[in-house]
Amino acid sequence: MKKNRLEAFSDGVLAIIITIMVLDLKPPTDTVGLAGLKEVLPVFLSYVLSFIYVGIYWNNHHHMFHTAEYVTGGILWANLHSLFWLSLFPFTTAWVGENHLAPVPTGVYGFVLLMAAIAYYILQRVIIASQGSGSLLAAAVGKDCKGRISPVLYLIAIPLAFVSVWISIGLYVFVALMWLVPDRRIERVLPKPEEE
Amino acid sequence: MKKNRLEAFSDGVLAIIITIMVLDLKPPTDTVGLAGLKEVLPVFLSYVLSFIYVGIYWNNHHHMFHTAEYVTGGILWANLHSLFWLSLFPFTTAWVGENHLAPVPTGVYGFVLLMAAIAYYILQRVIIASQGSGSLLAAAVGKDCKGRISPVLYLIAIPLAFVSVWISIGLYVFVALMWLVPDRRIERVLPKPEEE
Amino acid sequence: MKKNRLEAFSDGVLAIIITIMVLDLKPPTDTVGLAGLKEVLPVFLSYVLSFIYVGIYWNNHHHMFHTAEYVTGGILWANLHSLFWLSLFPFTTAWVGENHLAPVPTGVYGFVLLMAAIAYYILQRVIIASQGSGSLLAAAVGKDCKGRISPVLYLIAIPLAFVSVWISIGLYVFVALMWLVPDRRIERVLPKPEEE
Amino acid sequence: MKKNRLEAFSDGVLAIIITIMVLDLKPPTDTVGLAGLKEVLPVFLSYVLSFIYVGIYWNNHHHMFHTAEYVTGGILWANLHSLFWLSLFPFTTAWVGENHLAPVPTGVYGFVLLMAAIAYYILQRVIIASQGSGSLLAAAVGKDCKGRISPVLYLIAIPLAFVSVWISIGLYVFVALMWLVPDRRIERVLPKPEEE
Repeated sequence: MKKNRLEAFSDGVLAIIITIMVLDLKPPTDTVGLAGLKEVLPVFLSYVLSFIYVGIYWNNHHHMFHTAEYVTGGILWANLHSLFWLSLFPFTTAWVGENHLAPVPTGVYGFVLLMAAIAYYILQRVIIASQGSGSLLAAAVGKDCKGRISPVLYLIAIPLAFVSVWISIGLYVFVALMWLVPDRRIERVLPKPEEE
Repeated sequence: MKKNRLEAFSDGVLAIIITIMVLDLKPPTDTVGLAGLKEVLPVFLSYVLSFIYVGIYWNNHHHMFHTAEYVTGGILWANLHSLFWLSLFPFTTAWVGENHLAPVPTGVYGFVLLMAAIAYYILQRVIIASQGSGSLLAAAVGKDCKGRISPVLYLIAIPLAFVSVWISIGLYVFVALMWLVPDRRIERVLPKPEEE
Repeated sequence: MKKNRLEAFSDGVLAIIITIMVLDLKPPTDTVGLAGLKEVLPVFLSYVLSFIYVGIYWNNHHHMFHTAEYVTGGILWANLHSLFWLSLFPFTTAWVGENHLAPVPTGVYGFVLLMAAIAYYILQRVIIASQGSGSLLAAAVGKDCKGRISPVLYLIAIPLAFVSVWISIGLYVFVALMWLVPDRRIERVLPKPEEE
Repeated sequence: MKKNRLEAFSDGVLAIIITIMVLDLKPPTDTVGLAGLKEVLPVFLSYVLSFIYVGIYWNNHHHMFHTAEYVTGGILWANLHSLFWLSLFPFTTAWVGENHLAPVPTGVYGFVLLMAAIAYYILQRVIIASQGSGSLLAAAVGKDCKGRISPVLYLIAIPLAFVSVWISIGLYVFVALMWLVPDRRIERVLPKPEEE
């Protein structure tokens, strides 16, 4: 099985996830003064954070499948499983945005981040297993510090939402910033374009 | 006619179907306690089931068109007919999810599953007919036990929704699990990547 | 400019148009008896008609660009203009479906069909002009009877909506059926796959 | 990294943005007379303007990446940043459309146009930097008059919304018309198809 349709389908799903989140940004009821802007601010900020997260996942997905040549049935399902948790982002984003400081939505937001991270980790393992020894992806990922620390930080952030939602949100933002640093690991092990 | 645009269009439609179903997962009204989570649980579970069904259809579609090289006008329309019934999944998923144990939505959910299965069967037949004798797809599908049993189980499940919705839902889940076992039939008849 | 991104973008837009129309199929309020089904029937039927129309446009678009090799700036904009009118289908479909027999929505539905047909005709002309004499598309389209008759029938159907909406809807259905007959003209002039 | 997945993802996001804006065109409540049409007119006109803007961005994006061969991590994120501001168009379009002459939504509409223009300019700079001296894109863009004037006009239009929304809207329409003139700069520096 070639990987192009899996990539096209994943691109489609991620493009829709990242875009339909904006449907929860509803025109504010107050339009006379600038109060309308303040009204949409929490939803806007949760949209920004989720947009960055989906961007990171698309970016990493792009890099990861760059190392794969063929896909197996196992990869197809591990990929769908990963997309499933990402598809819940619009729901948790809307919930957090509409109820600014409530602990339950903040915790659920973190839980979906956690499950998406675990699903991505499983997908990575399934691809590495399919590549056998000498896997390009295994070499690229190495010790995978970021991939190991992120779920731990989500696990800490979830119960802390019931202490202070700001700590949880701060941790979510911190993990996003950690990933925003471009992941050069895969670019490093790949042959240069000229050599391809 | 080459198959790449048909695949791209189908991937697009299936990616949208699988993603817009999440729009029915609305932020719950109760956000203080954990009751909000209980409130969205039925919609969430119907979303999970439908996500798996669309995933199965995408997976099988992917495998099936792997055996096809060119598409005819008949295949284009049989494919659109198949996408039509799949496009009703967001509607039936929302209906079942919002009215947990009502028999009419549960029966209609099964009816759309039935029509999607029949449409997929027709599409398969049209592709096999276009490939003539020596069809790779015909060899791969063989007796097509799963494809024949599924509609029968849906047909049994629909009237049973008026006896107990749990029996119907149990049958829908059973058919999904039956298909989740990866379909190695098509991978078997295809040449190995190295031989391509 | 190569045509692949124009095709990919058009496939994306048409895939979204054909799928988001289903968002207007809202779960009915009555779920005890079968009355709920009757409640959604008009929206469902207008969805079926619009689905077929978008399917026809995608099909014809697919065939038409099969004859084109390169795209010009003029083709890009003629294509966007054509997609603009098609993008209004979800709006007119919802309006007709929700107000079963009202003449204004029925007339507006026909007006958007008319504008989409004119935009498609312009796109066809722009492509033929770009291909110069010996245009494959010009040879394929020939006298283009269907393309000429359709706008005339829409023009007749629009004012008749104020006499009887059934006549208008009958004409819309008739035009759709006329196009459903697969358009073999382009397949005829194209080289056979083996010869490509 | 090859550019095809970046193009496919961007095409997907732009296709969704341009299409979901139509979801704000809700069937009017008055359906007896022609008053219903008048009711949707402001939302329709703001939809037309935003459709043209997204069409311009897609067109320019298409041309710009035609000059790029490989994408770097910086280009991926500059592209996501550009898509982020474009993804807010459905929100600002709905807000302007629903509150015809209110200055705040009109100013916010211009602010998002301004940010999208700046993000596009950054993306262009990042691509030119990655191409080094002898950049095809740098040669094509030249002095980039349109790209420099547009943000200035938006900056003027935003505060003027509090004087008269018509001046602001007039400026937005003027910038769109300015870009609608096809951008032949990139086509000029590219080798002719035959030479490729």
